[in-house]
Amino acid sequence: MPLVRIAVPRHLDDMQLKHIADAIHESMVTTFNVPADDRFQVFTRHTDSELVWAPTYLNIAHIRSIVFVQITCNEGRTVEMKKALFARLASSIARGGAVLASDVIVSLVEVKKENWSFGNGIAQYAI
Amino acid sequence: MPLVRIAVPRHLDDMQLKHIADAIHESMVTTFNVPADDRFQVFTRHTDSELVWAPTYLNIAHIRSIVFVQITCNEGRTVEMKKALFARLASSIARGGAVLASDVIVSLVEVKKENWSFGNGIAQYAI
Amino acid sequence: MPLVRIAVPRHLDDMQLKHIADAIHESMVTTFNVPADDRFQVFTRHTDSELVWAPTYLNIAHIRSIVFVQITCNEGRTVEMKKALFARLASSIARGGAVLASDVIVSLVEVKKENWSFGNGIAQYAI
Repeated sequence: MPLVRIAVPRHLDDMQLKHIADAIHESMVTTFNVPADDRFQVFTRHTDSELVWAPTYLNIAHIRSIVFVQITCNEGRTVEMKKALFARLASSIARGGAVLASDVIVSLVEVKKENWSFGNGIAQYAI
Repeated sequence: MPLVRIAVPRHLDDMQLKHIADAIHESMVTTFNVPADDRFQVFTRHTDSELVWAPTYLNIAHIRSIVFVQITCNEGRTVEMKKALFARLASSIARGGAVLASDVIVSLVEVKKENWSFGNGIAQYAI
Repeated sequence: MPLVRIAVPRHLDDMQLKHIADAIHESMVTTFNVPADDRFQVFTRHTDSELVWAPTYLNIAHIRSIVFVQITCNEGRTVEMKKALFARLASSIARGGAVLASDVIVSLVEVKKENWSFGNGIAQYAI
C-alpha cells in the first residue's frame, strides 16, 4: 500500500535510480511490515533550480544534492517502526554511493486503510 | 477542492492525458460530491525507470504501465463513496483504451477543510 | 519540516522559480513559525496538457496559468495561522509578476511530528 514519491537530482542515472528504488523497498519490507509485492514507486528528476534547500538544518549540512522520499502509507505504525525505517532508508540508499545518508530526507503521510485501490476499482483494504 | 496528482508513463500522448483527466473529473463529480468547476489536476510523465511496481499485487497483474492517481481532498466521505469513486475511476479511465482498469492505482489523502486556498490568498472553506 | 511541492507551467524560467521559492519560504517563516533554515522545496514544470483546471472556481477566474503549492507540515497550526500563510503566499508570489494572486492554489497536508527524517536516518522531531 505505500505509494512512494522520490524526488532526485537530474544527474542520477537509471542504475542509481534502481539502487534507490530497491533500497527503499527493501527498507520498507524489513522494518515497516510491507509485503514484498506491495511496491509502488514514482521518481521525479529535477534540475538544480527545481530542488531547493538550506545549506544546513538541524546541524546536518547538505553539500551534495538531497533526495526527498515521501511515503503515503496506512496509519498505525509505531514511533519505533518509523525510527527503524528512517535509519534503514538512509543507510541503504547511501550504500549506492550516489547519495549521502545525510541527504536522505523522509516524509511520511498516513491515511486510512480504506483510502486505497490497487486496480480494478476495488477498495482492497476496506472491510 | 480536490487536488489530483496523476503519474503516467511517458508514452501517453496529450489526447490520452485529456481522456484520463476528463474521466477522473467526471468520476469525482458523479460519485464524490465534487462541484463541476472544482477541478485541479497535475500530471507528471515518467520514463520506465521512474515508475516502479511489482508484477502482481493482491492477485492483480500489471503487464502494461500503471497509472497513479493521488487525490488530496477534504475528510468526511463515507467508505461507500470511496468505493464508488474507485469503481468509476477505473472503468472510466479504462474506457480510453490506453490504460487497463487493473492498472489504475488510487490513493486518497484527506485533510481539513480549512487547509485550502483557491486563489487570492483566501481560505475559502474556513468558516 | 515543511516539504513544499510546487507545480508550475513550463514557461516559467529559473529566475521566476527562484522568486516563487523565496516568496514561499519567506511566507512560511513569517506566518507559519518555520525556522529560516528549515527549507525543503521541490518544483515540477508542466506543459499545458499536464496542468488542468476549470476556468472559474468560487468566482475566481483563471486566465493565466495557475501554480499549485502543496505543503506537507506538522499538525497544530491554528486556522488564523493558515489564513495568514495563504494571504502572504498569494501576495508574495504575485509580486514577482509571473503569477497572479488569483492563480496561487494552496493545499496543506498535516502530519505527526514523528513523521520526518532530515538526514542521517534520524527522526529528529520524535521525542
